[in-house]
Amino acid sequence: MIDQYIEHKQSELNNRMLVELKQLNIPSSFMEAILYSMEAGGKRLRPILMMATYEAFHHEPEKIVHPALALEMIHTYSLIHDDLPAMDDDDFRRGRETIHKKFDEATAILVGDGLLTYAFQVVSTSSFLEAEEKVYTLKQFSQASGFEGMIAGQHLDLKAENKHLNEHELNEIHQLKTGALIRAAIKIGAYLGGATPPQIESLDDFGKYLGLVFQIQDDILDVSGDMAVIGKPVGSDEAKNKSTYPQILGLNEAIRMKESYMNEARNKYEESKIEQPILLELLDIFGNRQS
Amino acid sequence: MIDQYIEHKQSELNNRMLVELKQLNIPSSFMEAILYSMEAGGKRLRPILMMATYEAFHHEPEKIVHPALALEMIHTYSLIHDDLPAMDDDDFRRGRETIHKKFDEATAILVGDGLLTYAFQVVSTSSFLEAEEKVYTLKQFSQASGFEGMIAGQHLDLKAENKHLNEHELNEIHQLKTGALIRAAIKIGAYLGGATPPQIESLDDFGKYLGLVFQIQDDILDVSGDMAVIGKPVGSDEAKNKSTYPQILGLNEAIRMKESYMNEARNKYEESKIEQPILLELLDIFGNRQS
Repeated sequence: MIDQYIEHKQSELNNRMLVELKQLNIPSSFMEAILYSMEAGGKRLRPILMMATYEAFHHEPEKIVHPALALEMIHTYSLIHDDLPAMDDDDFRRGRETIHKKFDEATAILVGDGLLTYAFQVVSTSSFLEAEEKVYTLKQFSQASGFEGMIAGQHLDLKAENKHLNEHELNEIHQLKTGALIRAAIKIGAYLGGATPPQIESLDDFGKYLGLVFQIQDDILDVSGDMAVIGKPVGSDEAKNKSTYPQILGLNEAIRMKESYMNEARNKYEESKIEQPILLELLDIFGNRQS
Repeated sequence: MIDQYIEHKQSELNNRMLVELKQLNIPSSFMEAILYSMEAGGKRLRPILMMATYEAFHHEPEKIVHPALALEMIHTYSLIHDDLPAMDDDDFRRGRETIHKKFDEATAILVGDGLLTYAFQVVSTSSFLEAEEKVYTLKQFSQASGFEGMIAGQHLDLKAENKHLNEHELNEIHQLKTGALIRAAIKIGAYLGGATPPQIESLDDFGKYLGLVFQIQDDILDVSGDMAVIGKPVGSDEAKNKSTYPQILGLNEAIRMKESYMNEARNKYEESKIEQPILLELLDIFGNRQS
Protein backbone atom coordinates (compact mmCIF):
# COMPACT_ATOMS: atom_id res chain seq x y z
CA MET A 1 0.00 0.00 0.00
CA ILE A 2 2.80 2.42 0.87
CA ASP A 3 4.52 1.52 -2.39
CA GLN A 4 1.38 2.40 -4.29
CA TYR A 5 1.01 5.62 -2.32
CA ILE A 6 4.58 6.63 -3.14
CA GLU A 7 4.28 5.70 -6.80
CA HIS A 8 1.08 7.65 -7.12
CA LYS A 9 2.61 10.73 -5.49
CA GLN A 10 5.80 10.46 -7.54
CA SER A 11 3.82 10.35 -10.72
CA GLU A 12 1.66 13.29 -9.65
CA LEU A 13 4.71 15.32 -8.64
CA ASN A 14 6.59 14.53 -11.82
CA ASN A 15 3.65 15.53 -13.98
CA ARG A 16 3.08 18.77 -12.11
CA MET A 17 6.78 19.54 -12.18
CA LEU A 18 6.86 19.18 -15.97
CA VAL A 19 3.87 21.48 -16.28
CA GLU A 20 5.54 24.12 -14.11
CA LEU A 21 8.87 23.94 -15.92
CA LYS A 22 7.62 23.63 -19.48
CA GLN A 23 5.59 26.81 -19.25
CA LEU A 24 8.83 28.75 -18.84
CA ASN A 25 9.70 30.88 -21.82
CA ILE A 26 13.43 30.16 -22.04
CA PRO A 27 15.91 29.03 -24.71
CA SER A 28 15.46 25.35 -25.56
CA SER A 29 19.11 24.53 -24.89
CA PHE A 30 18.65 25.76 -21.35
CA MET A 31 15.29 24.02 -20.90
CA GLU A 32 16.97 20.75 -21.82
CA ALA A 33 19.43 21.14 -18.94
CA ILE A 34 16.66 22.03 -16.47
CA LEU A 35 14.57 19.03 -17.48
CA TYR A 36 17.63 16.78 -17.33
CA SER A 37 18.23 17.85 -13.76
CA MET A 38 14.62 17.26 -12.71
CA GLU A 39 13.94 14.13 -14.72
CA ALA A 40 16.78 12.23 -13.16
CA GLY A 41 14.15 10.27 -11.28
CA GLY A 42 14.71 11.27 -7.72
CA LYS A 43 12.54 9.48 -5.25
CA ARG A 44 10.75 12.73 -4.30
CA LEU A 45 10.74 11.57 -0.68
CA ARG A 46 10.82 15.11 0.72
CA PRO A 47 7.73 16.41 -1.07
CA ILE A 48 5.94 13.12 -0.41
CA LEU A 49 6.69 13.57 3.28
CA MET A 50 5.29 17.09 3.10
CA MET A 51 2.15 15.92 1.33
CA ALA A 52 1.60 13.00 3.70
CA THR A 53 1.90 15.34 6.69
CA TYR A 54 -0.55 17.77 5.12
CA GLU A 55 -3.03 14.96 4.41
CA ALA A 56 -3.09 14.03 8.09
CA PHE A 57 -5.12 17.21 8.54
CA HIS A 58 -6.62 18.14 5.24
CA HIS A 59 -7.70 16.37 2.10
CA GLU A 60 -8.01 19.04 -0.56
CA PRO A 61 -4.75 18.45 -2.33
CA GLU A 62 -4.35 21.76 -4.22
CA LYS A 63 -2.86 23.77 -1.38
CA ILE A 64 0.16 21.56 -0.94
CA VAL A 65 1.14 21.15 -4.59
CA HIS A 66 3.21 24.30 -5.05
CA PRO A 67 5.09 24.03 -1.76
CA ALA A 68 5.85 20.38 -2.61
CA LEU A 69 7.21 21.29 -6.05
CA ALA A 70 9.20 24.16 -4.58
CA LEU A 71 10.72 21.82 -2.01
CA GLU A 72 11.88 19.41 -4.71
CA MET A 73 13.36 22.34 -6.67
CA ILE A 74 15.32 23.50 -3.63
CA HIS A 75 16.51 19.96 -2.97
CA THR A 76 17.56 19.52 -6.60
CA TYR A 77 19.38 22.88 -6.68
CA SER A 78 21.33 21.84 -3.58
CA LEU A 79 22.39 18.56 -5.19
CA ILE A 80 23.47 20.31 -8.41
CA HIS A 81 25.65 22.82 -6.58
CA ASP A 82 27.02 20.23 -4.13
CA ASP A 83 28.13 18.06 -7.04
CA LEU A 84 30.17 20.87 -8.67
CA PRO A 85 33.93 20.35 -9.06
CA ALA A 86 34.66 23.12 -6.53
CA MET A 87 32.38 21.41 -4.00
CA ASP A 88 32.02 17.62 -3.69
CA ASP A 89 33.16 17.03 -7.28
CA ASP A 90 30.79 14.19 -8.10
CA ASP A 91 30.45 12.93 -11.65
CA PHE A 92 27.43 10.70 -11.06
CA ARG A 93 24.11 11.17 -9.33
CA ARG A 94 21.21 8.74 -9.33
CA GLY A 95 23.14 6.62 -11.83
CA ARG A 96 23.50 9.35 -14.45
CA GLU A 97 26.10 11.97 -15.20
CA THR A 98 25.78 15.07 -13.03
CA ILE A 99 24.65 18.17 -14.85
CA HIS A 100 28.09 19.82 -15.01
CA LYS A 101 29.44 16.67 -16.67
CA LYS A 102 26.55 16.27 -19.08
CA PHE A 103 26.45 20.00 -19.94
CA ASP A 104 29.03 22.32 -18.37
CA GLU A 105 29.76 24.05 -15.07
CA ALA A 106 28.22 27.38 -16.01
CA THR A 107 24.97 25.61 -16.91
CA ALA A 108 25.01 23.68 -13.64
CA ILE A 109 25.52 26.85 -11.58
CA LEU A 110 22.76 28.68 -13.44
CA VAL A 111 20.26 25.81 -13.38
CA GLY A 112 20.85 25.54 -9.63
CA ASP A 113 20.44 29.28 -9.10
CA GLY A 114 17.34 29.23 -11.25
CA LEU A 115 15.68 26.29 -9.48
CA LEU A 116 16.23 27.94 -6.10
CA THR A 117 14.72 31.18 -7.37
CA TYR A 118 11.87 29.40 -9.14
CA ALA A 119 10.97 27.62 -5.90
CA PHE A 120 10.27 31.02 -4.34
CA GLN A 121 8.43 32.13 -7.47
CA VAL A 122 6.17 29.07 -7.60
CA VAL A 123 5.09 29.64 -4.00
CA SER A 124 4.76 33.43 -4.17
CA THR A 125 2.64 33.24 -7.35
CA SER A 126 0.54 30.21 -6.32
CA SER A 127 -3.17 30.63 -6.90
CA PHE A 128 -3.99 28.07 -4.18
CA LEU A 129 -2.42 29.76 -1.18
CA GLU A 130 -3.39 32.77 0.92
CA ALA A 131 -0.78 35.47 1.45
CA GLU A 132 -0.15 34.36 5.06
CA GLU A 133 0.35 30.77 3.90
CA LYS A 134 2.83 31.86 1.25
CA VAL A 135 4.77 33.90 3.79
CA TYR A 136 4.93 30.99 6.25
CA THR A 137 6.10 28.63 3.52
CA LEU A 138 8.72 31.02 2.14
CA LYS A 139 10.02 31.80 5.61
CA GLN A 140 10.45 28.11 6.44
CA PHE A 141 12.14 27.38 3.12
CA SER A 142 14.50 30.35 3.25
CA GLN A 143 15.52 29.67 6.85
CA ALA A 144 16.02 25.94 6.30
CA SER A 145 18.01 26.32 3.10
CA GLY A 146 19.91 29.49 4.03
CA PHE A 147 23.03 30.64 5.85
CA GLU A 148 21.87 29.15 9.15
CA GLY A 149 20.58 25.96 7.56
CA MET A 150 21.61 23.99 4.48
CA ILE A 151 24.33 26.46 3.40
CA ALA A 152 26.00 26.31 6.80
CA GLY A 153 25.80 22.52 6.63
CA GLN A 154 27.52 22.39 3.27
CA HIS A 155 30.17 24.87 4.43
CA LEU A 156 30.91 22.76 7.52
CA ASP A 157 30.84 19.58 5.45
CA LEU A 158 33.48 20.92 3.06
CA LYS A 159 35.63 22.13 5.95
CA ALA A 160 35.36 18.73 7.61
CA GLU A 161 37.00 16.81 4.78
CA ASN A 162 40.12 15.04 5.98
CA LYS A 163 39.18 15.76 9.58
CA HIS A 164 37.93 13.33 12.19
CA LEU A 165 34.62 14.52 13.56
CA ASN A 166 32.96 13.29 16.71
CA GLU A 167 29.36 12.19 16.78
CA HIS A 168 28.14 15.60 17.99
CA GLU A 169 29.88 17.45 15.16
CA LEU A 170 28.60 14.97 12.59
CA ASN A 171 25.05 15.36 13.92
CA GLU A 172 25.33 19.14 13.66
CA ILE A 173 26.43 19.04 10.03
CA HIS A 174 23.63 16.71 9.05
CA GLN A 175 20.99 18.58 11.03
CA LEU A 176 21.93 21.64 8.99
CA LYS A 177 22.69 20.08 5.64
CA THR A 178 19.74 17.73 5.27
CA GLY A 179 17.76 17.88 8.50
CA ALA A 180 16.61 21.49 8.30
CA LEU A 181 14.87 21.07 4.96
CA ILE A 182 13.20 17.81 6.02
CA ARG A 183 11.87 19.56 9.11
CA ALA A 184 10.67 22.49 7.01
CA ALA A 185 8.83 20.03 4.76
CA ILE A 186 6.97 18.60 7.71
CA LYS A 187 6.27 21.94 9.37
CA ILE A 188 4.89 23.44 6.16
CA GLY A 189 2.72 20.38 5.55
CA ALA A 190 1.36 20.53 9.10
CA TYR A 191 0.80 24.30 9.08
CA LEU A 192 -0.96 24.37 5.73
CA GLY A 193 -3.10 21.44 6.80
CA GLY A 194 -4.18 23.35 9.90
CA ALA A 195 -2.21 21.66 12.70
CA THR A 196 -2.18 23.26 16.16
CA PRO A 197 1.13 24.77 17.37
CA PRO A 198 1.79 21.83 19.76
CA GLN A 199 1.16 19.40 16.91
CA ILE A 200 3.57 21.33 14.70
CA GLU A 201 6.14 21.13 17.48
CA SER A 202 5.79 17.36 17.93
CA LEU A 203 5.92 16.79 14.20
CA ASP A 204 8.98 19.04 13.93
CA ASP A 205 10.69 16.75 16.45
CA PHE A 206 9.49 13.76 14.45
CA GLY A 207 11.20 15.40 11.47
CA LYS A 208 14.40 15.97 13.41
CA TYR A 209 14.75 12.25 14.18
CA LEU A 210 13.61 11.28 10.71
CA GLY A 211 16.39 13.43 9.24
CA LEU A 212 19.01 11.75 11.40
CA VAL A 213 17.67 8.31 10.47
CA PHE A 214 17.87 9.28 6.80
CA GLN A 215 21.47 10.40 7.09
CA ILE A 216 22.68 7.43 9.11
CA GLN A 217 21.12 5.10 6.56
CA ASP A 218 22.82 7.12 3.80
CA ASP A 219 26.17 6.56 5.46
CA ILE A 220 25.43 2.88 6.04
CA LEU A 221 24.57 2.45 2.36
CA ASP A 222 27.78 4.19 1.39
CA VAL A 223 29.81 1.46 3.11
CA SER A 224 27.56 -1.50 2.47
CA GLY A 225 25.34 -0.60 -0.49
CA ASP A 226 25.32 -1.74 -4.08
CA MET A 227 26.39 0.83 -6.70
CA ALA A 228 23.83 -0.45 -9.18
CA VAL A 229 21.14 0.32 -6.61
CA ILE A 230 22.39 3.53 -5.02
CA GLY A 231 23.53 5.07 -8.32
CA LYS A 232 26.94 6.26 -7.21
CA PRO A 233 30.17 4.47 -6.35
CA VAL A 234 30.12 2.69 -2.99
CA GLY A 235 32.69 4.10 -0.58
CA SER A 236 32.69 7.57 -2.15
CA ASP A 237 32.49 9.25 1.27
CA GLU A 238 35.50 7.31 2.48
CA ALA A 239 37.40 8.12 -0.71
CA LYS A 240 36.84 11.82 0.06
CA ASN A 241 37.81 11.32 3.69
CA LYS A 242 34.41 12.36 4.93
CA SER A 243 33.42 11.30 8.39
CA THR A 244 30.46 8.93 8.50
CA TYR A 245 28.48 7.32 11.28
CA PRO A 246 29.77 3.80 10.59
CA GLN A 247 33.33 5.12 10.60
CA ILE A 248 32.94 6.96 13.91
CA LEU A 249 30.72 4.44 15.66
CA GLY A 250 31.30 1.20 13.82
CA LEU A 251 28.65 -0.30 11.56
CA ASN A 252 26.74 -2.16 14.28
CA GLU A 253 26.57 0.81 16.60
CA ALA A 254 25.46 3.04 13.69
CA ILE A 255 22.61 0.63 12.99
CA ARG A 256 21.71 0.56 16.69
CA MET A 257 21.66 4.36 16.80
CA LYS A 258 19.49 4.55 13.70
CA GLU A 259 16.99 2.23 15.37
CA SER A 260 17.03 4.30 18.52
CA TYR A 261 16.24 7.45 16.52
CA MET A 262 13.46 5.58 14.72
CA ASN A 263 11.94 4.88 18.13
CA GLU A 264 12.25 8.53 19.12
CA ALA A 265 10.51 9.49 15.91
CA ARG A 266 7.67 7.05 16.63
CA ASN A 267 7.26 8.57 20.09
CA LYS A 268 7.00 12.05 18.61
CA TYR A 269 4.47 10.82 16.09
CA GLU A 270 2.36 9.47 18.97
CA GLU A 271 2.76 12.76 20.81
CA SER A 272 1.33 14.66 17.84
CA LYS A 273 -1.94 12.72 18.15
CA ILE A 274 -2.48 12.50 14.43
CA GLU A 275 -3.59 9.47 12.50
CA GLN A 276 -1.43 9.19 9.44
CA PRO A 277 0.25 5.77 9.45
CA ILE A 278 1.87 6.67 6.14
CA LEU A 279 4.29 8.85 8.10
CA LEU A 280 5.40 5.78 10.05
CA GLU A 281 5.74 3.81 6.86
CA LEU A 282 7.84 6.61 5.38
CA LEU A 283 10.00 6.50 8.50
CA ASP A 284 10.58 2.80 7.86
CA ILE A 285 11.46 3.55 4.26
CA PHE A 286 13.89 6.33 5.25
CA GLY A 287 15.56 3.99 7.72
CA ASN A 288 15.63 0.80 5.70
CA ARG A 289 15.95 1.97 2.10
CA GLN A 290 18.56 0.27 -0.03
CA SER A 291 19.17 3.26 -2.33
CA MET B 1 22.17 67.72 -3.04
CA ILE B 2 21.86 64.43 -4.91
CA ASP B 3 25.38 63.51 -3.80
CA GLN B 4 24.38 64.05 -0.19
CA TYR B 5 21.18 62.06 -0.71
CA ILE B 6 23.12 59.14 -2.14
CA GLU B 7 25.79 59.26 0.55
CA HIS B 8 23.17 59.33 3.25
CA LYS B 9 21.33 56.35 1.76
CA GLN B 10 24.55 54.41 1.18
CA SER B 11 25.53 54.86 4.77
CA GLU B 12 22.06 53.87 6.01
CA LEU B 13 22.03 50.78 3.76
CA ASN B 14 25.52 49.73 4.74
CA ASN B 15 24.73 50.02 8.43
CA ARG B 16 21.47 48.10 8.13
CA MET B 17 23.17 45.47 6.00
CA LEU B 18 25.80 44.88 8.67
CA VAL B 19 23.11 44.56 11.31
CA GLU B 20 21.24 41.98 9.21
CA LEU B 21 24.33 39.95 8.41
CA LYS B 22 26.07 40.10 11.78
CA GLN B 23 23.08 38.64 13.59
CA LEU B 24 23.58 35.41 11.64
CA ASN B 25 24.81 32.54 13.76
CA ILE B 26 27.42 31.08 11.41
CA PRO B 27 31.09 30.08 11.55
CA SER B 28 33.35 33.14 11.66
CA SER B 29 35.40 32.00 8.66
CA PHE B 30 32.23 32.01 6.59
CA MET B 31 31.01 35.33 8.02
CA GLU B 32 34.28 36.89 6.91
CA ALA B 33 33.60 35.90 3.31
CA ILE B 34 30.02 37.20 3.43
CA LEU B 35 31.12 40.54 4.85
CA TYR B 36 33.92 40.77 2.31
CA SER B 37 31.42 40.35 -0.49
CA MET B 38 29.06 42.99 0.89
CA GLU B 39 31.65 45.48 2.13
CA ALA B 40 33.26 45.81 -1.27
CA GLY B 41 31.68 49.25 -1.41
CA GLY B 42 29.17 48.90 -4.18
CA LYS B 43 27.34 52.08 -5.02
CA ARG B 44 24.01 50.61 -3.85
CA LEU B 45 22.33 52.33 -6.78
CA ARG B 46 19.58 49.73 -7.09
CA PRO B 47 18.30 49.94 -3.51
CA ILE B 48 18.67 53.72 -3.60
CA LEU B 49 16.49 53.76 -6.71
CA MET B 50 13.94 51.61 -4.92
CA MET B 51 13.95 53.85 -1.86
CA ALA B 52 13.71 57.05 -3.92
CA THR B 53 10.72 55.64 -5.81
CA TYR B 54 9.05 54.64 -2.56
CA GLU B 55 9.63 58.10 -1.07
CA ALA B 56 7.76 59.69 -3.95
CA PHE B 57 4.63 58.30 -2.32
CA HIS B 58 5.39 57.61 1.28
CA HIS B 59 7.73 58.94 3.90
CA GLU B 60 7.85 56.37 6.65
CA PRO B 61 11.08 54.69 5.77
CA GLU B 62 10.74 51.38 7.65
CA LYS B 63 8.66 49.58 5.05
CA ILE B 64 11.27 49.84 2.31
CA VAL B 65 14.34 48.85 4.31
CA HIS B 66 14.09 45.08 4.04
CA PRO B 67 13.19 45.00 0.34
CA ALA B 68 16.11 47.38 -0.31
CA LEU B 69 18.56 45.16 1.57
CA ALA B 70 17.20 42.07 -0.16
CA LEU B 71 17.66 43.73 -3.54
CA GLU B 72 21.31 44.47 -2.81
CA MET B 73 21.80 40.87 -1.64
CA ILE B 74 20.34 39.53 -4.89
CA HIS B 75 22.49 41.92 -6.92
CA THR B 76 25.62 40.92 -4.99
CA TYR B 77 24.88 37.20 -5.36
CA SER B 78 24.54 37.67 -9.11
CA LEU B 79 27.93 39.41 -9.31
CA ILE B 80 29.62 36.71 -7.22
CA HIS B 81 28.32 33.90 -9.42
CA ASP B 82 28.91 35.81 -12.67
CA ASP B 83 32.55 36.34 -11.69
CA LEU B 84 33.21 32.61 -11.17
CA PRO B 85 35.82 30.91 -13.38
CA ALA B 86 33.13 28.83 -15.11
CA MET B 87 31.17 32.00 -15.91
CA ASP B 88 32.81 35.35 -16.76
CA ASP B 89 36.04 34.43 -14.95
CA ASP B 90 36.77 37.85 -13.47
CA ASP B 91 39.52 38.27 -10.89
CA PHE B 92 38.65 41.82 -9.90
CA ARG B 93 35.45 43.59 -8.97
CA ARG B 94 35.17 47.14 -7.68
CA GLY B 95 38.96 47.30 -7.52
CA ARG B 96 39.35 44.31 -5.20
CA GLU B 97 39.86 40.61 -5.70
CA THR B 98 36.66 38.74 -6.43
CA ILE B 99 35.51 36.41 -3.69
CA HIS B 100 36.63 33.18 -5.37
CA LYS B 101 40.15 34.67 -5.70
CA LYS B 102 40.27 36.02 -2.16
CA PHE B 103 38.76 32.84 -0.67
CA ASP B 104 37.95 29.91 -2.95
CA GLU B 105 35.34 28.82 -5.47
CA ALA B 106 33.29 26.74 -3.06
CA THR B 107 33.00 29.71 -0.73
CA ALA B 108 31.98 31.99 -3.60
CA ILE B 109 29.27 29.58 -4.75
CA LEU B 110 27.94 29.16 -1.21
CA VAL B 111 28.04 32.86 -0.31
CA GLY B 112 26.13 33.60 -3.51
CA ASP B 113 23.56 30.86 -2.83
CA GLY B 114 23.24 32.11 0.73
CA LEU B 115 22.76 35.77 -0.17
CA LEU B 116 20.03 34.88 -2.66
CA THR B 117 18.27 32.76 -0.05
CA TYR B 118 18.76 35.37 2.67
CA ALA B 119 17.16 38.01 0.46
CA PHE B 120 13.95 35.96 0.50
CA GLN B 121 14.31 35.35 4.23
CA VAL B 122 14.78 39.02 5.08
CA VAL B 123 11.60 39.94 3.23
CA SER B 124 9.49 36.99 4.40
CA THR B 125 10.43 37.60 8.05
CA SER B 126 10.23 41.41 7.96
CA SER B 127 8.31 42.95 10.84
CA PHE B 128 7.50 46.06 8.79
CA LEU B 129 5.57 44.49 5.93
CA GLU B 130 2.08 43.03 5.65
CA ALA B 131 1.75 39.54 4.19
CA GLU B 132 0.40 40.90 0.88
CA GLU B 133 3.34 43.30 0.63
CA LYS B 134 5.81 40.50 1.26
CA VAL B 135 4.19 38.36 -1.40
CA TYR B 136 4.27 41.17 -3.98
CA THR B 137 7.92 41.87 -3.21
CA LEU B 138 8.98 38.22 -3.32
CA LYS B 139 7.08 37.64 -6.54
CA GLN B 140 8.77 40.59 -8.24
CA PHE B 141 12.20 39.55 -7.01
CA SER B 142 11.84 35.91 -7.97
CA GLN B 143 10.49 36.70 -11.42
CA ALA B 144 13.12 39.35 -12.15
CA SER B 145 16.05 37.27 -10.98
CA GLY B 146 14.80 33.88 -12.16
CA PHE B 147 14.76 31.67 -15.24
CA GLU B 148 12.83 34.22 -17.29
CA GLY B 149 14.85 37.16 -15.99
CA MET B 150 18.42 37.53 -14.79
CA ILE B 151 19.29 33.84 -15.17
CA ALA B 152 18.13 33.80 -18.80
CA GLY B 153 20.17 36.97 -19.39
CA GLN B 154 23.32 35.41 -18.00
CA HIS B 155 22.73 32.22 -20.01
CA LEU B 156 22.31 34.20 -23.23
CA ASP B 157 25.29 36.40 -22.36
CA LEU B 158 27.55 33.36 -21.96
CA LYS B 159 26.27 31.85 -25.19
CA ALA B 160 26.89 35.13 -27.02
CA GLU B 161 30.63 35.21 -26.37
CA ASN B 162 32.56 35.22 -29.63
CA LYS B 163 29.36 35.95 -31.55
CA HIS B 164 28.31 39.16 -33.22
CA LEU B 165 24.98 40.27 -31.88
CA ASN B 166 22.72 42.84 -33.41
CA GLU B 167 21.25 45.69 -31.41
CA HIS B 168 17.98 43.84 -30.80
CA GLU B 169 19.75 40.78 -29.41
CA LEU B 170 21.99 42.90 -27.22
CA ASN B 171 18.97 44.79 -25.87
CA GLU B 172 17.27 41.50 -25.04
CA ILE B 173 20.24 40.20 -23.06
CA HIS B 174 20.55 43.39 -21.06
CA GLN B 175 16.82 43.71 -20.44
CA LEU B 176 17.00 40.27 -18.85
CA LYS B 177 20.39 40.40 -17.21
CA THR B 178 20.25 43.81 -15.56
CA GLY B 179 17.01 45.46 -16.66
CA ALA B 180 14.56 43.09 -14.99
CA LEU B 181 15.95 43.62 -11.50
CA ILE B 182 16.08 47.43 -11.94
CA ARG B 183 12.45 47.38 -13.01
CA ALA B 184 11.54 45.18 -10.05
CA ALA B 185 13.28 47.68 -7.75
CA ILE B 186 11.13 50.50 -9.06
CA LYS B 187 7.90 48.52 -9.11
CA ILE B 188 8.36 47.33 -5.53
CA GLY B 189 9.19 50.87 -4.38
CA ALA B 190 6.10 52.24 -6.11
CA TYR B 191 3.78 49.46 -4.92
CA LEU B 192 4.89 49.62 -1.29
CA GLY B 193 4.59 53.40 -1.37
CA GLY B 194 1.01 53.11 -2.57
CA ALA B 195 1.22 54.02 -6.28
CA THR B 196 -1.81 53.46 -8.50
CA PRO B 197 -1.57 50.72 -11.16
CA PRO B 198 -1.14 53.29 -14.00
CA GLN B 199 1.63 54.96 -12.03
CA ILE B 200 3.35 51.62 -11.49
CA GLU B 201 3.11 51.00 -15.22
CA SER B 202 4.65 54.37 -16.16
CA LEU B 203 7.41 53.94 -13.61
CA ASP B 204 8.06 50.42 -14.87
CA ASP B 205 8.64 51.92 -18.32
CA PHE B 206 10.86 54.57 -16.74
CA GLY B 207 12.83 51.67 -15.25
CA LYS B 208 13.05 49.91 -18.59
CA TYR B 209 14.77 52.90 -20.21
CA LEU B 210 16.85 53.55 -17.13
CA GLY B 211 18.17 49.99 -17.33
CA LEU B 212 19.16 50.41 -20.96
CA VAL B 213 20.85 53.73 -20.18
CA PHE B 214 22.77 52.04 -17.38
CA GLN B 215 23.98 49.26 -19.64
CA ILE B 216 24.98 51.46 -22.56
CA GLN B 217 26.98 53.65 -20.18
CA ASP B 218 28.57 50.48 -18.77
CA ASP B 219 29.70 49.51 -22.26
CA ILE B 220 30.89 53.04 -23.02
CA LEU B 221 32.98 53.03 -19.85
CA ASP B 222 34.46 49.69 -20.80
CA VAL B 223 35.97 51.20 -23.97
CA SER B 224 36.71 54.70 -22.71
CA GLY B 225 36.89 54.51 -18.90
CA ASP B 226 39.77 54.62 -16.47
CA MET B 227 40.63 51.38 -14.64
CA ALA B 228 41.47 53.27 -11.46
CA VAL B 229 37.94 54.67 -11.50
CA ILE B 230 35.89 51.72 -12.78
CA GLY B 231 37.80 49.15 -10.70
CA LYS B 232 38.35 46.56 -13.43
CA PRO B 233 40.54 46.48 -16.52
CA VAL B 234 39.34 48.71 -19.37
CA GLY B 235 38.49 46.70 -22.46
CA SER B 236 37.62 43.54 -20.55
CA ASP B 237 34.43 43.03 -22.59
CA GLU B 238 36.39 43.25 -25.83
CA ALA B 239 39.03 40.86 -24.49
CA LYS B 240 36.24 38.34 -23.90
CA ASN B 241 34.73 39.00 -27.31
CA LYS B 242 31.50 40.25 -25.84
CA SER B 243 29.29 42.38 -28.00
CA THR B 244 28.88 45.93 -26.73
CA TYR B 245 26.86 48.91 -27.87
CA PRO B 246 29.92 50.94 -28.97
CA GLN B 247 31.18 47.96 -30.94
CA ILE B 248 27.86 47.39 -32.73
CA LEU B 249 26.86 51.02 -33.17
CA GLY B 250 30.11 52.96 -32.90
CA LEU B 251 30.87 55.09 -29.87
CA ASN B 252 29.10 58.23 -31.08
CA GLU B 253 25.92 56.41 -32.03
CA ALA B 254 25.98 54.56 -28.69
CA ILE B 255 26.13 57.90 -26.88
CA ARG B 256 23.30 59.24 -29.04
CA MET B 257 21.17 56.21 -28.28
CA LYS B 258 21.84 56.52 -24.56
CA GLU B 259 20.64 60.13 -24.71
CA SER B 260 17.55 59.12 -26.62
CA TYR B 261 16.68 56.52 -23.93
CA MET B 262 17.29 59.15 -21.26
CA ASN B 263 14.64 61.29 -22.95
CA GLU B 264 12.23 58.37 -23.10
CA ALA B 265 12.80 57.81 -19.40
CA ARG B 266 12.06 61.47 -18.65
CA ASN B 267 8.81 61.22 -20.62
CA LYS B 268 7.74 58.20 -18.60
CA TYR B 269 8.59 60.01 -15.40
CA GLU B 270 6.31 62.88 -16.49
CA GLU B 271 3.60 60.38 -17.38
CA SER B 272 3.68 58.95 -13.86
CA LYS B 273 2.70 62.36 -12.43
CA ILE B 274 4.89 61.99 -9.38
CA GLU B 275 7.15 64.64 -7.92
CA GLN B 276 10.43 63.03 -7.05
CA PRO B 277 13.20 64.93 -8.90
CA ILE B 278 15.72 62.60 -7.28
CA LEU B 279 14.64 59.95 -9.78
CA LEU B 280 15.66 62.28 -12.62
CA GLU B 281 18.94 63.02 -10.92
CA LEU B 282 19.54 59.28 -10.53
CA LEU B 283 18.81 58.90 -14.23
CA ASP B 284 21.52 61.46 -14.95
CA ILE B 285 23.90 59.58 -12.69
CA PHE B 286 23.12 56.24 -14.35
CA GLY B 287 23.72 57.83 -17.75
CA ASN B 288 26.78 59.90 -16.99
CA ARG B 289 28.61 57.99 -14.28
CA GLN B 290 32.33 57.51 -14.75
CA SER B 291 32.54 54.27 -12.76
